[in-house]
This record gives sequence, structure tokens and C-alpha cells, in this order.
Amino acid sequence: MKAKVYITPKAGILDPQGLTIERSLPALGFEGVSNVRVGKYIELELPDGEGAGESLERMCRKLLANPIIEDFEYELIEE
Amino acid sequence: MKAKVYITPKAGILDPQGLTIERSLPALGFEGVSNVRVGKYIELELPDGEGAGESLERMCRKLLANPIIEDFEYELIEE
Repeated sequence: MKAKVYITPKAGILDPQGLTIERSLPALGFEGVSNVRVGKYIELELPDGEGAGESLERMCRKLLANPIIEDFEYELIEE
Repeated sequence: MKAKVYITPKAGILDPQGLTIERSLPALGFEGVSNVRVGKYIELELPDGEGAGESLERMCRKLLANPIIEDFEYELIEE
């Protein structure tokens, strides 16, 4: 089954990539953009089965995200 | 209005981050995971208005994504 994982910096955690984007946009003609936060988007395929969600959750905690500074959400797509 | 941008490496483009994750998972006890692709997930707020979608599309092309090697999709969230 396919899965999509969305990882974002936790609220309050400094996000230098987001800040850099936010500061660069006006020079390119885009005014008024705020609260830019840059995270990761991961697509993967994992074995079907009842434990898929739980397995993905553990993958996120152990490898994909850093739960101290990042939040994550995921979506399982049945095919 | 809030927007979410999903950036993924184009099909056929080497994704070293994805490969590294795929190769690390079995050692952590996760077998059978494949096709791991790592992209970016960006959240931002932009001024409301009819041109918001078009403006965001141009932002993606000019700064947020590299359209030569990356695909992007976005979602506008009316509040």
C-alpha cells in the first residue's frame, strides 16, 4: 500500500529554510507572504496488512522524523 | 489564505535521501518498504484574492521548487 508522510517543524522551532524563503519572496515580486514553514514530504510503499499504520507510525518516530523538533502526519492509500 | 505545497523529485531523478531511508529501514526492523521518495512540504500564508493560485504557481516555479528536477502540487485553503 502507498503512504504519504508530512513532516513539519514544531510550532516555536526555528525554521531557517522557511525564513529564507519568506525574505526572498518580496525581491521576486511576491508581497505579503507569511508564516512559511518548510518540512518534508515522503512517499513510500509498504506491505499491506492490518499493522501498516502502526508500522508507519513507528517508522516516523524512529527514522523519518525527529519527534523532538518535528511533527508528522501520514496518510495510507489503499490501492 | 493558507496554502500547502508538495514538492517531489521527478520520476527517474535519483533521490539519494529516499535511497538512504529505504536501505536503513530493514536494520530497524521494517521489511518490504520500497519506492521511498523524499520531497518537500511547505506551508505558507498568502494574501487572499482571485490571483492567489496563479501567484502560488509562479512562486513554485521561481523559488520553491526546481521545475527541472522536481514536480509540485499545491492546495489553497480558504479560511
